[in-house]
Amino acid sequence: MNLLDKLFRSEQIEHVFSDSEYLESLLHFEAALARAEAEIGLIYEPAARTIASKCQARLFDQKAITDGAALAGNIAIPVVRQLTALVAKENEEAAHFVHWGATSQDAMDTAVVLQLRRAIEFIERDLGTLVDTLAALAETHRNTPVVARTWMQQALPTTFGFIVAGWLDAILRDRLRLDELRARALTLQFGGAVGTLAALGDDGPAVAKALAEDLRLKLPVAPWHSHRDRFAEVATTLALSCGTLAKIASDISLHAQTEIGELSEPSAEGRGSSSTLPHKRNPLTCASVLASGRRVPGLVSTMLSCMVQEQQRGLGTWHAEWETLPDIVRLTGGATFHMARMLPGLVVHTERMKQNLDTTNGLIFAEAVTFALARQIGKAQAHRLVETACKNAVAQKRHLKSVLEEDSSVSSLIPGAQLTTFFDATKYLGSSGLFIDNILSIAKGHSTP
Amino acid sequence: MNLLDKLFRSEQIEHVFSDSEYLESLLHFEAALARAEAEIGLIYEPAARTIASKCQARLFDQKAITDGAALAGNIAIPVVRQLTALVAKENEEAAHFVHWGATSQDAMDTAVVLQLRRAIEFIERDLGTLVDTLAALAETHRNTPVVARTWMQQALPTTFGFIVAGWLDAILRDRLRLDELRARALTLQFGGAVGTLAALGDDGPAVAKALAEDLRLKLPVAPWHSHRDRFAEVATTLALSCGTLAKIASDISLHAQTEIGELSEPSAEGRGSSSTLPHKRNPLTCASVLASGRRVPGLVSTMLSCMVQEQQRGLGTWHAEWETLPDIVRLTGGATFHMARMLPGLVVHTERMKQNLDTTNGLIFAEAVTFALARQIGKAQAHRLVETACKNAVAQKRHLKSVLEEDSSVSSLIPGAQLTTFFDATKYLGSSGLFIDNILSIAKGHSTP
Amino acid sequence: MNLLDKLFRSEQIEHVFSDSEYLESLLHFEAALARAEAEIGLIYEPAARTIASKCQARLFDQKAITDGAALAGNIAIPVVRQLTALVAKENEEAAHFVHWGATSQDAMDTAVVLQLRRAIEFIERDLGTLVDTLAALAETHRNTPVVARTWMQQALPTTFGFIVAGWLDAILRDRLRLDELRARALTLQFGGAVGTLAALGDDGPAVAKALAEDLRLKLPVAPWHSHRDRFAEVATTLALSCGTLAKIASDISLHAQTEIGELSEPSAEGRGSSSTLPHKRNPLTCASVLASGRRVPGLVSTMLSCMVQEQQRGLGTWHAEWETLPDIVRLTGGATFHMARMLPGLVVHTERMKQNLDTTNGLIFAEAVTFALARQIGKAQAHRLVETACKNAVAQKRHLKSVLEEDSSVSSLIPGAQLTTFFDATKYLGSSGLFIDNILSIAKGHSTP
Amino acid sequence: MNLLDKLFRSEQIEHVFSDSEYLESLLHFEAALARAEAEIGLIYEPAARTIASKCQARLFDQKAITDGAALAGNIAIPVVRQLTALVAKENEEAAHFVHWGATSQDAMDTAVVLQLRRAIEFIERDLGTLVDTLAALAETHRNTPVVARTWMQQALPTTFGFIVAGWLDAILRDRLRLDELRARALTLQFGGAVGTLAALGDDGPAVAKALAEDLRLKLPVAPWHSHRDRFAEVATTLALSCGTLAKIASDISLHAQTEIGELSEPSAEGRGSSSTLPHKRNPLTCASVLASGRRVPGLVSTMLSCMVQEQQRGLGTWHAEWETLPDIVRLTGGATFHMARMLPGLVVHTERMKQNLDTTNGLIFAEAVTFALARQIGKAQAHRLVETACKNAVAQKRHLKSVLEEDSSVSSLIPGAQLTTFFDATKYLGSSGLFIDNILSIAKGHSTP
Repeated sequence: MNLLDKLFRSEQIEHVFSDSEYLESLLHFEAALARAEAEIGLIYEPAARTIASKCQARLFDQKAITDGAALAGNIAIPVVRQLTALVAKENEEAAHFVHWGATSQDAMDTAVVLQLRRAIEFIERDLGTLVDTLAALAETHRNTPVVARTWMQQALPTTFGFIVAGWLDAILRDRLRLDELRARALTLQFGGAVGTLAALGDDGPAVAKALAEDLRLKLPVAPWHSHRDRFAEVATTLALSCGTLAKIASDISLHAQTEIGELSEPSAEGRGSSSTLPHKRNPLTCASVLASGRRVPGLVSTMLSCMVQEQQRGLGTWHAEWETLPDIVRLTGGATFHMARMLPGLVVHTERMKQNLDTTNGLIFAEAVTFALARQIGKAQAHRLVETACKNAVAQKRHLKSVLEEDSSVSSLIPGAQLTTFFDATKYLGSSGLFIDNILSIAKGHSTP
Repeated sequence: MNLLDKLFRSEQIEHVFSDSEYLESLLHFEAALARAEAEIGLIYEPAARTIASKCQARLFDQKAITDGAALAGNIAIPVVRQLTALVAKENEEAAHFVHWGATSQDAMDTAVVLQLRRAIEFIERDLGTLVDTLAALAETHRNTPVVARTWMQQALPTTFGFIVAGWLDAILRDRLRLDELRARALTLQFGGAVGTLAALGDDGPAVAKALAEDLRLKLPVAPWHSHRDRFAEVATTLALSCGTLAKIASDISLHAQTEIGELSEPSAEGRGSSSTLPHKRNPLTCASVLASGRRVPGLVSTMLSCMVQEQQRGLGTWHAEWETLPDIVRLTGGATFHMARMLPGLVVHTERMKQNLDTTNGLIFAEAVTFALARQIGKAQAHRLVETACKNAVAQKRHLKSVLEEDSSVSSLIPGAQLTTFFDATKYLGSSGLFIDNILSIAKGHSTP
Repeated sequence: MNLLDKLFRSEQIEHVFSDSEYLESLLHFEAALARAEAEIGLIYEPAARTIASKCQARLFDQKAITDGAALAGNIAIPVVRQLTALVAKENEEAAHFVHWGATSQDAMDTAVVLQLRRAIEFIERDLGTLVDTLAALAETHRNTPVVARTWMQQALPTTFGFIVAGWLDAILRDRLRLDELRARALTLQFGGAVGTLAALGDDGPAVAKALAEDLRLKLPVAPWHSHRDRFAEVATTLALSCGTLAKIASDISLHAQTEIGELSEPSAEGRGSSSTLPHKRNPLTCASVLASGRRVPGLVSTMLSCMVQEQQRGLGTWHAEWETLPDIVRLTGGATFHMARMLPGLVVHTERMKQNLDTTNGLIFAEAVTFALARQIGKAQAHRLVETACKNAVAQKRHLKSVLEEDSSVSSLIPGAQLTTFFDATKYLGSSGLFIDNILSIAKGHSTP
Repeated sequence: MNLLDKLFRSEQIEHVFSDSEYLESLLHFEAALARAEAEIGLIYEPAARTIASKCQARLFDQKAITDGAALAGNIAIPVVRQLTALVAKENEEAAHFVHWGATSQDAMDTAVVLQLRRAIEFIERDLGTLVDTLAALAETHRNTPVVARTWMQQALPTTFGFIVAGWLDAILRDRLRLDELRARALTLQFGGAVGTLAALGDDGPAVAKALAEDLRLKLPVAPWHSHRDRFAEVATTLALSCGTLAKIASDISLHAQTEIGELSEPSAEGRGSSSTLPHKRNPLTCASVLASGRRVPGLVSTMLSCMVQEQQRGLGTWHAEWETLPDIVRLTGGATFHMARMLPGLVVHTERMKQNLDTTNGLIFAEAVTFALARQIGKAQAHRLVETACKNAVAQKRHLKSVLEEDSSVSSLIPGAQLTTFFDATKYLGSSGLFIDNILSIAKGHSTP
């Protein structure tokens, strides 16, 4: 656990991508391979048992692996060498069958797939929490009026529930993509030196099948050593999720600005404090999630550019994936983790939301009046009429309603009482309620039990 | 059509993303909106007809739109203004109902969706051609031996058909992703100023439904103005395709190196010629496709980073998408187009493939011997024995087979006749044929009729 | 001029990078090459004159060049072919000496350098305007108090002049980098087919020297066909400038939010208007510049990844630069152009700046009090004391000053009159004035005459 | 040291960027700040001494810092808190003056600058080794003919010395950029909460000056909290270096292909071995450096996009830099380190270089003949004549020279003896020797003593 790991990442996913767990995953592959080969009669059952019994990270010398990786160019070679030595100590014969018929990349890619499976589970669990949290929040604030802002300017009223439902809608799509991804990406890699499984003679497919079953992974139609779209798709799919989370964090941080003050992150002793300013409460989780939202796109571009792997095994392109893909999972997983923990405590200042609707002296209700007038005198003329009233309201620092009331060309068309309703935020929310309901009904179908 | 458009792109997709077609798409939205609003009785049928009749790009002043876009910050505002004026000339009343209840982004996003639909059709058609071409090529070369190379070094024999089948397998996954994408991304955008459709009172959903039907687009559960995962997913999905194509181009260019000479791009008068070297034939399509493979990842990182759109409409983040997403489609579409036209003419030099299997004086058959020995004396000892023989073969510039023949520790285990079979590339191809068949059977299910 | 060119870019730089000007630049190289070769006696003076006389873009068939580029893989080959034909019509003999000893990349790279030189001049001119504008603005608002915000929260008072001076300081560094860049990047490319100038026998260096002089370009120590750091550095240096401009645009857009209202972009008829909201005034230039700030980083990653060019001429890597580098220049140039035109009209609402200092009921003056107390009772105790007062002020919705006045542990240390000064923004500005002066004095040294 | 650190990175730079050294750097800032404040009489000399005495990483609880960073949003807050407690234990009074007048970012940015200074020293040392190694190699192979390849096709002869000199030339430019960078980027950060140093009253500048001197850092004209061009420029400048190294690695890996065999990485027991293929020797360092060359561009795009920091301190944008900038330094530093260690052992197979010049049956000498003929019959006709001869040579599998000898239109112009000289690689090297000398003379000026 490094200094910034708790700020940006999740402990559980860090554990999955720790050196020791990567080693465990590699060894999990080697053990399963031995079992699979024993199952189809390619190697002796006792040899497989001995091999599997040595496939435990704690028996390995990590320092030697680090040195060996620098010399051999990958992690699997020194691991297999140590494993062979460990097995040989107990059973010289069995040692011959370590890693039998496999290539380094078989073990390494499959190990990553096993890590991805575990990490994606954590991410999906946290996305589930987010779905539940946001669904409840959208429901609670279904009718809480708030200013909608476009181009970072006040535009019209909306509800906070509708804003939250928009976040939820995006997360629901992210979950759907993760579902599709799992089916495609969590796939065994097993092809031998160049993908033909030649070293196994005709037994390759049978071993592959048994191996996939042992590891509970999908069996692909063929090995995919230098076709990296599966891993690249893990990267892009997670990046879409991370983008959604960063968008939510951006919205919260904008709502949380001192002058707007509509949302705050939950407060706790020391949380988001400043080293010199006693009054500050910084939006901590937003900063962390936004940072990941800035970092993941660049990492994804690396994964995509590394799809161009040379011939039957990439040179440099493959190597560039090794830390990049885990980094993407760790940052996205961290963003999901922190959002899932912060959002349930999000503080909603409905009073400030209400106040901010008044910031513009009624200008944000201009569209409502315009459309009412437009039905009678056409949109262009209505637009001009209201635009002039807006300008006067600003110049004279008066409320738009009172300017309009004095304008006989308006009052002749819209009686005062009716005019008042146009300046009621709760009366100009269009179909926001319906949209919220649409989204909530999907969310219910996806809710965690 | 700019100077480099034919080299990097496809004329048909360039047409789709031309200024005039973008304008047509915007106007297509405006016409359909008027029809939809007439259908549900919100505006008068004749007004809708007049509006629709003016929705033709040729009636518009593009120069004025360019100027207007610079002043208003988007393309829709000057277009709507011109459209309103055109309608007003014929029917002042009808002009009131132009763009009724919509916001600029509704028109602009939906216009892009309409363009995407057309472009993706072209891409899928070319992917179909690629599937057919590669399937035939894999079948033809099912048994053509060729050197497999890892880390850019000769490794083992494989077949050219298996290499091609690997390309095909990746393209089949790309097509599958495009299918899923279409269902999610080709979606109407319609939410009014802030996504609530407030200007339409309670009629918003009915208009949206009629509009989606008119445009044959999916109706989303809610507007998605500042949630850009759909467009970002178009970008990432196409990038995965482009990555596959660039990988294929990279392989071809490596096979086409003068010293390897196993493949050439089709020749034609002037094709791939040099300005100064009369003997050169440059791999033109590979260069074009590899260039796109280098460019798209950076563009995707922009699309992903732009997912963080502010509040109800992004500032700068939205704007940054406008040219970036088309650029991604154009480059990927171009790469698909050029590959689909080049690959049917790919020249396969089977004789050179055969010769190159001999480059190493038999070293690439070392694994075959090793595994045969390993079954008798264990892998470690076999590995050591063969490794020594390899070193001797290199040092003495002799063929590995003759070195092994002289080594009594080998000849006592493997009789000469059997040894010969290990140096036959066609005898060490493992399950490559089966893998090819697996892939071809999927391809058949996807073949264009 | 495309639909979005005026919004994102500058007409002058668009002109430089237009197809016809690229063609002119290529022909400028060819004409200068002929002159240089005549000068050192390699070709006949009249031949050189004839060649130079045909080097005019208007004599060329652009459609044929587009087609030729698609066939040959670069633009220079069809251009040279047409040029040769044009010359041959007048003087068959002279036609032999067109492009003599050069390779396509010599012409193409040098043409880009010539374009870069012109574009950078425009950028530097606009940066000069920005320096002058910002220097004046910093001077004017040297003492205008405004809230400083960190983590998007109100922090302490500062002056608007100091904020502007920070922008200026960054732009001054950008100019310095451009100066250094010019010396390194505006360099002749001339090496013949593989960089040895072999076709010119021993005359290569003399031709190169005369050619560099004719084009007023730096003569490099050797050709640099596949070493692209010069072009990549153009990309990164411009990206740093673009980043600075986007940071300024981001600041302005944050200050311009409705609820903050401290800055507005200049208003003009129709400028930044909304298609449906009559009261909106959108920060147009900010959106345009922020969009470029989002796009350029991804393009730079492409330029950097394309530095890995194969052997003596890149395959795909070189091609990927052709549109990417111009895109970076065009977007950065556009951002500079639009900022240089918008900033002189920036509207500064000093009244709102003053009001916003009061938003927090005195909390932003907490540090001032803390440090005053800290000098007497230590920082930790002072921090605690003031933090408690802040919490009370928030809870009781009272002004921090009045809370502190009632606290005897404070009033015993700080008399009321002194306390008042801590709540005066103009009294807690530290060295902001000095920093402004430092920056202005550098700006004066760089000011445009 | 993680599993892949030795493969991709350098131990010394890993040490600089270790958690404990980051902590040391932060504490180095805090100690120097206390000394500087004592020097100008702001705090008591003994207090400063006590503070400085506690500024040792080994006294700190790293676990608590990790937790504190997650709660406070940065590393400095928990570090300052622990430091204050440590000081207080010894001297309650002195504890008041810990971090006096500074903000977290002052400590954190300056700490990074101190780390950068150390890391850049290592990088420059290794670049120095590379300069010496490449200069010697270029000198040794000044006259070693080798095939020059463009578009990955054989083009013309060149010398291996000239290829190496091109690498060297690029590295010399990289060093120059690093020199310029140091002057601009290795700069103190010190501005207090919002950059005004308000907490220090009028003493800010004097403290800043003393602090810069203590740390031997440049004193900037003003603090630069939210203007990140200095750090972004560190990123881009290193990326240019990394790009150069990756280009060299790419060239070596292409030359090292089995079928070309002109270069090999140095061999050593187990170095670059395969887990299953006993004959393989993989280009290990090339893979490592190429991987960094793929990864750095994406990381740079993040640094550039993070220049858009909000107001007086970025939210998320600042945080995104924390691991990204070190990652760039670590990867570039690792690439430099590994190249500097591998290149001295590079094996040059001059015999294979010679053989490969014959691969094309003389075609790569076509240009030499063409230019000789062109001087007599014009380039176009010469080009046609030689192109036809090339085609015949290919079709008939004969040497170009013998085809030309039989062609009377050639033999009438070029006597046989002269023709022979055109097929001598050493006779068609143009100015390669001169270019090498140019580059070597610059290298000598830069050589390490």
